[in-house]
Amino acid sequence: MLPVISVVGHSGSGKTTILEVLIAELKKRGYRIAVIKHEAHGFQLDIEGKDSWRLLKAGSDAVLLSAPQEIALLQKTDHDRNIEELLSLLKLDYDIVLTEGFKKDKAIKIEVYRKELGKEFLCSPQELFAVITDEPINIGVAQFNRNEINKLSDMIQERLLSQQEEELALFVNNHNIAANPFVKDIIIKTVKAMISTLRGVEEIKSIDLHISGRNK
Amino acid sequence: MLPVISVVGHSGSGKTTILEVLIAELKKRGYRIAVIKHEAHGFQLDIEGKDSWRLLKAGSDAVLLSAPQEIALLQKTDHDRNIEELLSLLKLDYDIVLTEGFKKDKAIKIEVYRKELGKEFLCSPQELFAVITDEPINIGVAQFNRNEINKLSDMIQERLLSQQEEELALFVNNHNIAANPFVKDIIIKTVKAMISTLRGVEEIKSIDLHISGRNK
Repeated sequence: MLPVISVVGHSGSGKTTILEVLIAELKKRGYRIAVIKHEAHGFQLDIEGKDSWRLLKAGSDAVLLSAPQEIALLQKTDHDRNIEELLSLLKLDYDIVLTEGFKKDKAIKIEVYRKELGKEFLCSPQELFAVITDEPINIGVAQFNRNEINKLSDMIQERLLSQQEEELALFVNNHNIAANPFVKDIIIKTVKAMISTLRGVEEIKSIDLHISGRNK
Repeated sequence: MLPVISVVGHSGSGKTTILEVLIAELKKRGYRIAVIKHEAHGFQLDIEGKDSWRLLKAGSDAVLLSAPQEIALLQKTDHDRNIEELLSLLKLDYDIVLTEGFKKDKAIKIEVYRKELGKEFLCSPQELFAVITDEPINIGVAQFNRNEINKLSDMIQERLLSQQEEELALFVNNHNIAANPFVKDIIIKTVKAMISTLRGVEEIKSIDLHISGRNK
């Protein structure tokens, strides 16, 4: 599975700054990174020209802006999505996904802790992969201070990014379906075998397949 | 395949306004619509709070913002994408895709023509599905004036939206692979059969499957 790490912490703990440094460090090491950010209160995208918003307002369910150096996909949704649902939008184009927030989700977690805020930890030690803290804390979890993001990156690289296996991500009705390595292997081999016989298909680096039923 | 219609026309012909009316009309008829807009000169997304841009600037290849009513996916890209590449981002969540621009792409085209601009048509009659024009023109293509978008919608509905078949969209190395109905049926049935045996899978409404190889 695509490794997902959630950076959590109380407001004011410095999550975004830690994420910036962590992204820069992992990027330097050659990884492709996606970030998911939860915006509980919604967000305003103010788009130059505004035509895109006219189209969303007219009733379009999605607007995709395509430029030579960037792409933006704006979609309406009827509920607050969890990480699992959001991952299907990212496919397998990334080596790692970092999230800001989503503390109730199941992803691996790093908590940013700032003692001077005078608050408890958001997560229990069992939930935590690591803690970023200014002063050492006795909770039996790997700890780094704000200047040791390179060490944290070493740990992420060793534990989460070292496999170079063939990957399968599978979503049924937008829910992620887990499969054991044996079943995964059967699915990958069967799908590849079928598809390799089609005209226009040469070396397969990636496959994205979408099926939608008769009764949507 | 997911029907794609490109609305093309010279600058100043009124493409965006026609799109707005067409979107509203198709939406009223119950269709789920995505719009793709080409932004040759790039675009600026000015995001409230700006944290998202800090994360993109730090080196993240994608930022996904998730709120209860909207989602935005911002991605860096190394080239100007064609419609085919962009469709894989939309999966099969929509009934129809309308594009603004992309006149060189292969999608079905509607040209918005305004005589007073004093310019030739962008497309040859053979390329055109319909023309929106203020005055009748003798080119042997279905014609509608700016107040007849409901009639244009009837034609779109009849010719492009009436099938209710099971859909397969297949991308290998991000290129759309066409398959004839027989092969499509084999792929859909085989994948569904394999996946229906997995734990956690009940009624299948949609499947999204991503495979990425060992050597990215």
